[in-house]
Amino acid sequence: MTLSTDIEAFTFAQGFRASATGCGLKTSSAMGASSLDLALVVANGPCSAAAVFTTNRVKAAPVLYDQEVMAAQAHAIRAVITNAGCANACTGPQGMTNTRTTAALVAERIDCAPEQVLVMSTGVIGRQLNMEKLTRGVTDVTSGVAHQGAPWVARAIMTTDTKPKVAHATLTIDGKTVTIAGCCKGAGMIHPNMATMLAIITTDVAIEPALLDAELRAAVNQSFNRISVDGDTSTNDTVLLLASGASGAQLSGAHAGFRAALTEVCTSLAKQVARDGEGATRLIEIHVTGARDSQEAHTVANSIARSPLFKTAVHGGDPNWGRVLCAAGYSGADIDQTKLSLTFGPTDRPGPNDTPAVHVVAGGLPLEYEERQAAANLRGDPVLVHLDLGLGDAESTVWTCDMSAEYVEINAHYTT
Amino acid sequence: MTLSTDIEAFTFAQGFRASATGCGLKTSSAMGASSLDLALVVANGPCSAAAVFTTNRVKAAPVLYDQEVMAAQAHAIRAVITNAGCANACTGPQGMTNTRTTAALVAERIDCAPEQVLVMSTGVIGRQLNMEKLTRGVTDVTSGVAHQGAPWVARAIMTTDTKPKVAHATLTIDGKTVTIAGCCKGAGMIHPNMATMLAIITTDVAIEPALLDAELRAAVNQSFNRISVDGDTSTNDTVLLLASGASGAQLSGAHAGFRAALTEVCTSLAKQVARDGEGATRLIEIHVTGARDSQEAHTVANSIARSPLFKTAVHGGDPNWGRVLCAAGYSGADIDQTKLSLTFGPTDRPGPNDTPAVHVVAGGLPLEYEERQAAANLRGDPVLVHLDLGLGDAESTVWTCDMSAEYVEINAHYTT
Repeated sequence: MTLSTDIEAFTFAQGFRASATGCGLKTSSAMGASSLDLALVVANGPCSAAAVFTTNRVKAAPVLYDQEVMAAQAHAIRAVITNAGCANACTGPQGMTNTRTTAALVAERIDCAPEQVLVMSTGVIGRQLNMEKLTRGVTDVTSGVAHQGAPWVARAIMTTDTKPKVAHATLTIDGKTVTIAGCCKGAGMIHPNMATMLAIITTDVAIEPALLDAELRAAVNQSFNRISVDGDTSTNDTVLLLASGASGAQLSGAHAGFRAALTEVCTSLAKQVARDGEGATRLIEIHVTGARDSQEAHTVANSIARSPLFKTAVHGGDPNWGRVLCAAGYSGADIDQTKLSLTFGPTDRPGPNDTPAVHVVAGGLPLEYEERQAAANLRGDPVLVHLDLGLGDAESTVWTCDMSAEYVEINAHYTT
Repeated sequence: MTLSTDIEAFTFAQGFRASATGCGLKTSSAMGASSLDLALVVANGPCSAAAVFTTNRVKAAPVLYDQEVMAAQAHAIRAVITNAGCANACTGPQGMTNTRTTAALVAERIDCAPEQVLVMSTGVIGRQLNMEKLTRGVTDVTSGVAHQGAPWVARAIMTTDTKPKVAHATLTIDGKTVTIAGCCKGAGMIHPNMATMLAIITTDVAIEPALLDAELRAAVNQSFNRISVDGDTSTNDTVLLLASGASGAQLSGAHAGFRAALTEVCTSLAKQVARDGEGATRLIEIHVTGARDSQEAHTVANSIARSPLFKTAVHGGDPNWGRVLCAAGYSGADIDQTKLSLTFGPTDRPGPNDTPAVHVVAGGLPLEYEERQAAANLRGDPVLVHLDLGLGDAESTVWTCDMSAEYVEINAHYTT
């Protein structure tokens, strides 16, 4: 398997076309680096599809709509239309009508049924879509006027993201080259399960929807559900996986290679999201081992990942290990403070900053350690934090980012 | 009942003396506005005592020690010694020895048994107390060298607090004037239950420890357990309540007036903590009504209070009501988004900024409202946020603060 995250070389899998345009839905400078705001991925024929949605009780119209579509048409999806700039959440019946209209406009242009079109939205909550702009946008994005190609989709779905996020893997199945390629957006409101995170992943295996769904859930559980930027779970989160069958490879049961590659693509995208967290300057990988079961490990890792005190300390390069132990202590897991062991690092930054791992706590007590080295490890990217609970053999990894003053600046003035 | 929060006029209840000194335990400029770091409250005779401690599984040495003392000596407490600058948490057997030594040093100076002395610590986690400095400090704080009086105690226990926090209530019971007076500290790591929060409350009723304990738990549940600054629950949280009996009033059963006054004192202190949250510029009161039960109301209010996205929006005076609904949606409570009603304000700020309440959401959908007025209400102090769930008659109130870039600055460099 090969994995690439190069935006310039990025393509979707065989059997898909992609385009993007700007139609004026993004009105604020807070909405990100790209003025593109409408992206279309079209399959040449009906696809198998799988989806994972937000667990928030407040769900945006496109999430409710997509859930309907997936229940009826998961075997025959033709397109995904995604807009940025307006989340179409808390918009009531009018919002639902606008989502249906969006799907119908696309369906008319690409000649399929409206219920074969999935819709995703991201942006400000509680505003109605400007349907005049969106209608013009759909015309553009389905014509030669639009930017053609997958890199433009990755750019168009961005909001406060500072960079597009793509991952492209190839593997061989039954002598056929199979591609798994996707892009995603998400920078704030990121927390399991899923957060303001939209992902479109394509593959060209032939696969039944039920099996595709199982593969996607397994991969998401190891990737998107293990990142946290700020603990806020959004109303719009959606991960879509479409399979065109165009590679000629057929999957009729679980396939270890396919699952591994899909998990790698999802993990790569998820880590790109965590690293690009609003105001973040680096990725933090929290590895908890020695738990009695993986849920316990995850509970502790997640509590650390959510702690603003820990995330600000990392930002300052401050080896304040007490905050790690403290967050483990209030996680709700039944830990034993006298068995905790904590290591910072190593950094994998090349060059003169290379430092070995620094063991800072053993048996719940601080060790004598080189403060300068520990601080250097917190300035690496990724920052590696390893907490052993000393209770068992289970483990879990969660990714988050440091918290900077810029996080506050970005979020203090998002709608205005 | 009268309530005062005037620091200059602050005194403890009858039967207590107070003093404070600086002995060099606070070594960093990050440790707050006061160079005092050792505070002593001494009762003239044995007191009834009640205490509530952190729920964190990682507990500081003084918390473990105080739990022992309270189990055996809650009827005969003589003193509380509190140091700032060093939390004495994650310090192992040496930390426990240092706590016991601290109690013994005080006991020797005031002529009581060591197990009649309670100890509280706050500051950096994982460093041992400097016992040389502390020993000199105990000598000072029990002599004429020290600052005499309750206001100095309130100042000496501060860490990143920007101001001392006191509350003093008097009421009449059986013709006797009874005082309930306390001070507390806490600015970061504040979250139910309790967080880096130390409080010493005194009263002069005569009361058995078991009854005092019930009164304190009832009051704390309505006050300190309803504030959140950053969602981090500390290793050291302690609320102590000592009753000297010096007023001559005897409580032999639940007394509505006493409970109300104690709850008012605790609520006043808790709100002072939330308002002085690290980097905070104003208090936010989140009132959730229309829940099926008070736990549901509390779950929703707490989820909103913990949301960095909501707290940063308030900081920017940005009426981003979508973030309130979003946080309600992921709280875990079984809410119905079509029944949500949200109001910002009114502000109780006097003068030209007075604006009426602005109703921004009804039936889960945004209303037409005056954006300028809504924004003005988010710039008031306190900021009042009222969310009705439309499901029942239960309610809950939680206090928090806005989140500013300064929060990050303070916490990025706390130990260094």
